Amino acid sequence: MITVLSGGVGAARLLRALSLEMEADQINAVVNVGDDLVLNGLTICPDLDTITYTLAGLNNDELGWGLRAETWRVMDELEQLGGSSWFRLGDRDLATHLYRSQRLHEGATKTDVTRELCAHWGVRVRLLPATNDPIETVFDTEIGTLSFQEYFVRHRHDVVVRAISVVGAKDAQPTPEVLDALRNCERIVIAPSNPLISIDPILQVPEIRDLLRARRRDVVAVSPLINGAALKGPADRLLRENGYEVSGEGVARFYEGLIDTLIIDESDREEAPSIERHDVKVKVTTTHMADPLNASRLATTVLE
Amino acid sequence: MITVLSGGVGAARLLRALSLEMEADQINAVVNVGDDLVLNGLTICPDLDTITYTLAGLNNDELGWGLRAETWRVMDELEQLGGSSWFRLGDRDLATHLYRSQRLHEGATKTDVTRELCAHWGVRVRLLPATNDPIETVFDTEIGTLSFQEYFVRHRHDVVVRAISVVGAKDAQPTPEVLDALRNCERIVIAPSNPLISIDPILQVPEIRDLLRARRRDVVAVSPLINGAALKGPADRLLRENGYEVSGEGVARFYEGLIDTLIIDESDREEAPSIERHDVKVKVTTTHMADPLNASRLATTVLE
Repeated sequence: MITVLSGGVGAARLLRALSLEMEADQINAVVNVGDDLVLNGLTICPDLDTITYTLAGLNNDELGWGLRAETWRVMDELEQLGGSSWFRLGDRDLATHLYRSQRLHEGATKTDVTRELCAHWGVRVRLLPATNDPIETVFDTEIGTLSFQEYFVRHRHDVVVRAISVVGAKDAQPTPEVLDALRNCERIVIAPSNPLISIDPILQVPEIRDLLRARRRDVVAVSPLINGAALKGPADRLLRENGYEVSGEGVARFYEGLIDTLIIDESDREEAPSIERHDVKVKVTTTHMADPLNASRLATTVLE
Repeated sequence: MITVLSGGVGAARLLRALSLEMEADQINAVVNVGDDLVLNGLTICPDLDTITYTLAGLNNDELGWGLRAETWRVMDELEQLGGSSWFRLGDRDLATHLYRSQRLHEGATKTDVTRELCAHWGVRVRLLPATNDPIETVFDTEIGTLSFQEYFVRHRHDVVVRAISVVGAKDAQPTPEVLDALRNCERIVIAPSNPLISIDPILQVPEIRDLLRARRRDVVAVSPLINGAALKGPADRLLRENGYEVSGEGVARFYEGLIDTLIIDESDREEAPSIERHDVKVKVTTTHMADPLNASRLATTVLE
């Protein structure tokens, strides 16, 4: 059994690759909920949804998010009404959020809802929200305080970030399922998600961080950088703005004391010595998962 | 200027007929919000929406509610997910609720949102939620306590009602716009809506009731009964279950002390003497508004 700390897209691809190499129900994903939001009253869990849709084979590759064969009837109408539509909600996607909001209102937890949605779509990987307590990643930026989705979607992460905080994390409890998954797995994997805004909100939950520290020798992280840059998204920029080098070494410093091994891409091979200085072992492989063969190789390396 | 106390469908038709007989912007509608609900996080105002859609010419005549040319993409998907779908939300209709929920979240009032939606659709009748305070019509029934929509939609008003209460009404304030509309109009009209569940939640707001009592001689009500029965919905049944005769006299008793005149349908002409015993004048006309000529005749009678 393995447990993968997961953000959105990068984690979804790694989980898909892993599920081809081992029994899917032996894979736990502890998923970031710091960027969850309540929009117009609807509770939306972008990372959980991205992973669920991807593992169900329903992800929209053209957009890079949401569901395939999506339609935009509600959104078109909302725009006509002059409503705010920077956070695009497809018709099919909306049904997911309505279902979740309905079930939460009935007293279900995010863990319950996630299990139900996975069962509906035949997703056998165990997706586990890191916590059912409210936590919220907030950005102090040059243009003021922004919520995660304001920063990421509305402003396309194109503003200078002074500080990131995860409100509520210090008081948040991991769910029993998460504790079980972290305690009883053979290996803990940190997905190649954004360290600062996808993985850190999970690590800021004190019990999760303590568990990782205690199991450090079983923890392997996959660097989100390839050839010294983020494939997509603001990981490189945020590392720099937060005082870390944009390199395998920067990632190793960020995870210092929590990981045993860092997996880096072949293109960053020469960074190995600088990473090892931080008491972190290095494995080199291909980490660019757009190519299924690379993805399979990465999955195999993760499981070695 | 006239002001019409309004529920949903019956009021919408009267308002449409009135707007053909006089300047639409001289008509105020004080609209019931006792059956508003928050469903899956979305704030829905069925009576306001029914009137808005009807006056915009967008009402769905086949269904009797909602928007014409509606599609059900989100609802179909929600049903697939196993979500609760007894309260049907069309795709276009959902955009209305998303817009409203968004604006309320931003700090707008229901009054603001209603004005914005009316402006968008070119509705010139001034629709005014009776109050912006939270009030909720609740049914004590043979199968337990039900919310308005559970009673009306989910159980198709096919259960015995022991008591109706409007939670919050005693502490609710009418909006300034409502007070102005009730104080400064020439005539106050009570639409042929259900007296117990559409009009009474408005009348239970103390300041509104007091104003009606004070202006009693300017108040005319249209009976919702035709030939001794409700055209649609549970008005007759609820009158009986609450100790009122199902007749013009029952309606007159229900509005006793609040109205000067009751307009009844020709088919109930012989009830006039029993109504007049309650110090209520009677006017007889055709109140069945499916026929535009009847509707016009009723509007003219109301304005006489």
